[in-house]
Amino acid sequence: MPTPHLVFTTDFGLSDPYAGVMKGVALTINPFARLLDLTHQISPQNVAQGSFLLGLNHRFFPSDAIHVAVVDPFVGTARRPVLIATPWGRFVAPDNGLLSGVLTDYLEAPPMTPGLIEIPAEITAVHLSKSEYWRHPVSQTFHGRDIFTPVAAHLSLGIAPETMGDSIENLFYLPMAQPTLEEGVITGQVIYQDVYGNLISNIAAQHLQDGKPIEVQIEGQRISGLSRTFNDPQHGSDARLVALIGSHGYLEVAVPNGNAATLLEIAQPEGVPVVVVSG
Amino acid sequence: MPTPHLVFTTDFGLSDPYAGVMKGVALTINPFARLLDLTHQISPQNVAQGSFLLGLNHRFFPSDAIHVAVVDPFVGTARRPVLIATPWGRFVAPDNGLLSGVLTDYLEAPPMTPGLIEIPAEITAVHLSKSEYWRHPVSQTFHGRDIFTPVAAHLSLGIAPETMGDSIENLFYLPMAQPTLEEGVITGQVIYQDVYGNLISNIAAQHLQDGKPIEVQIEGQRISGLSRTFNDPQHGSDARLVALIGSHGYLEVAVPNGNAATLLEIAQPEGVPVVVVSG
Amino acid sequence: MPTPHLVFTTDFGLSDPYAGVMKGVALTINPFARLLDLTHQISPQNVAQGSFLLGLNHRFFPSDAIHVAVVDPFVGTARRPVLIATPWGRFVAPDNGLLSGVLTDYLEAPPMTPGLIEIPAEITAVHLSKSEYWRHPVSQTFHGRDIFTPVAAHLSLGIAPETMGDSIENLFYLPMAQPTLEEGVITGQVIYQDVYGNLISNIAAQHLQDGKPIEVQIEGQRISGLSRTFNDPQHGSDARLVALIGSHGYLEVAVPNGNAATLLEIAQPEGVPVVVVSG
Repeated sequence: MPTPHLVFTTDFGLSDPYAGVMKGVALTINPFARLLDLTHQISPQNVAQGSFLLGLNHRFFPSDAIHVAVVDPFVGTARRPVLIATPWGRFVAPDNGLLSGVLTDYLEAPPMTPGLIEIPAEITAVHLSKSEYWRHPVSQTFHGRDIFTPVAAHLSLGIAPETMGDSIENLFYLPMAQPTLEEGVITGQVIYQDVYGNLISNIAAQHLQDGKPIEVQIEGQRISGLSRTFNDPQHGSDARLVALIGSHGYLEVAVPNGNAATLLEIAQPEGVPVVVVSG
Repeated sequence: MPTPHLVFTTDFGLSDPYAGVMKGVALTINPFARLLDLTHQISPQNVAQGSFLLGLNHRFFPSDAIHVAVVDPFVGTARRPVLIATPWGRFVAPDNGLLSGVLTDYLEAPPMTPGLIEIPAEITAVHLSKSEYWRHPVSQTFHGRDIFTPVAAHLSLGIAPETMGDSIENLFYLPMAQPTLEEGVITGQVIYQDVYGNLISNIAAQHLQDGKPIEVQIEGQRISGLSRTFNDPQHGSDARLVALIGSHGYLEVAVPNGNAATLLEIAQPEGVPVVVVSG
Repeated sequence: MPTPHLVFTTDFGLSDPYAGVMKGVALTINPFARLLDLTHQISPQNVAQGSFLLGLNHRFFPSDAIHVAVVDPFVGTARRPVLIATPWGRFVAPDNGLLSGVLTDYLEAPPMTPGLIEIPAEITAVHLSKSEYWRHPVSQTFHGRDIFTPVAAHLSLGIAPETMGDSIENLFYLPMAQPTLEEGVITGQVIYQDVYGNLISNIAAQHLQDGKPIEVQIEGQRISGLSRTFNDPQHGSDARLVALIGSHGYLEVAVPNGNAATLLEIAQPEGVPVVVVSG
């Protein structure tokens, strides 16, 4: 079997050497380490966005992948470094809610407010406390380099999670904003804008009742019906805004061959209300 | 022999997880897949730019490389997903003209207008229709993840192209703007601006008659003669704009240690006329 | 043993295909080449910044790594292509000062002015003159593709440095701006701003006398004392600017969960004075 991949999700960006340095550190521990990026461009210190994107996307990677997730505004303070092993991947991260999107799948009733949750039965979690698996000297400001990556590299060598720290019973959970449903009206919000200007909402495909005609409202605009693709002929060539279920499984608003965020003059997309009226 | 590389050329950018997700999908199909990027920063939905850059650059990669090319504004509509096998690489892409730059080398007389062309003898082409080589469920909006990457990963495992769909006889061709030549005057245009602000034209080295003195005109400026490098002493230390044959083999306009696009105050570089007067 | 990694540090950016093309070229020479990026986002033609970041970061990579460093404003002119072998990595680069940050560690008294230096005893250096290890035809404008990467790929195959050119006795050295120390006052400057807006100075941890209370001054602001982390409670929740020793080992100025460059309205961070008053 090949060595499992280390998959990085961070807010380090690509202009600084931080991402490259983590990979160098991984290779000094496991010279055969295989290294992959989900993204380094989480908005700076946006734990909620990192949680959302990691939750949505980790299942596209092999189930033996080791994810290094670092959006860590409180690096160097009391927040714990943790490791969780799930049926679909292992994750090292600060215990600040960044793994909430991954945990949600395993929770029967995800809490609506931030706080500690009990760890689901399918998952084991460890507080990373054994410094012999870290890089030294350990800085106070770059645990991605000094703790998380070294632990992941040791995992890829076959070191067992439970030797790297003490088993724990709870983790910090940061709920994603949930849409409200009321008398045929779903009120959600934009949670992410992609590079095309598509506005991805927190309204999941399963929130929509199959077959019922709907209208999507955003920033005073009304979009009639769901498109199947970005260029759905049924909406006519003069359709500018379209609504569709995106590849994430969530309702998104787009402009065929254009940019919805620009068209709607949205400067700060996160939190913009999206309303679906059906029936 | 090592497994051939998958080389990605897309307009997905690097801020979203799209590029990372495609790599994850490749590895779930071929755990030994080797993954490489030409670029993910084709201008959004700019098929012509993708075609140009892929045509120029694919021969710098090993000839057994499998290129995954996705600039796909009509994803989910009737445009076909295709695979072509050439003497210098295999390519999976939407049949929207994105492979034109690769095909040009094999055409005796490339057409001047967009449309279907017969496939050159050195190349075999397949309409990707066998969904057993795709990822399921197949979204309507992200065929890079659900069709093109899975097909490429299967190719890297040794699956034969002809088992993935039906052989086809023609492909959609999108011509690159060609310079006109008339009585010692070549009229071309800028087709690409790079990160340094260098303006790359569609005037190829072979369009210029060796030895004849030339003058290059752009935005009302005149540049006398070709430089050999960005810092050619023969043009004197006060030379601001220089013209030279770039590493692409095309005439480009540059500023030594500066930015030609900024100096010329060009906001939208593509299409800006470049004229060469010789003799 | 696995093949050593090629680690790229350039100013090519990620929007153009230049970085991808270098990797393709490496793989045509060594099909097993393993490829890694420190960063491609050195500011265009900023040799001093490249030198600083490569000096700071190369020791986080395995000591057998082969670094390809290309910030090369005078490509195609008389500056020499060189290769140096150090106890911590081999480096191919233009001889324009880009390797100064790596060399500094080995110099007893680094010179204060730019110029040729004698090569330290621990290091061997070669002028890359043997064109049989290059890619042909060699362009005048992209030696990263045509000289530096091919040489690095041949190195990774086990070709000895001394067969690739003639041994040399000196290299061009570009000193980093040094802080001045005078009667308890250290006057340095910002040399780098990272993606978070943190302002990294040239004042190293060892410049500060342990234990003495200090005040850091920047752009008319005064910061009292050093923080241990970005969120050090001792500075109170109303602390906006903090000063700390960053993960690079240098004094940096930051804003907890914010952007120091924005707060201080600094448009051009490099060279901004940073003063430390102690005692």
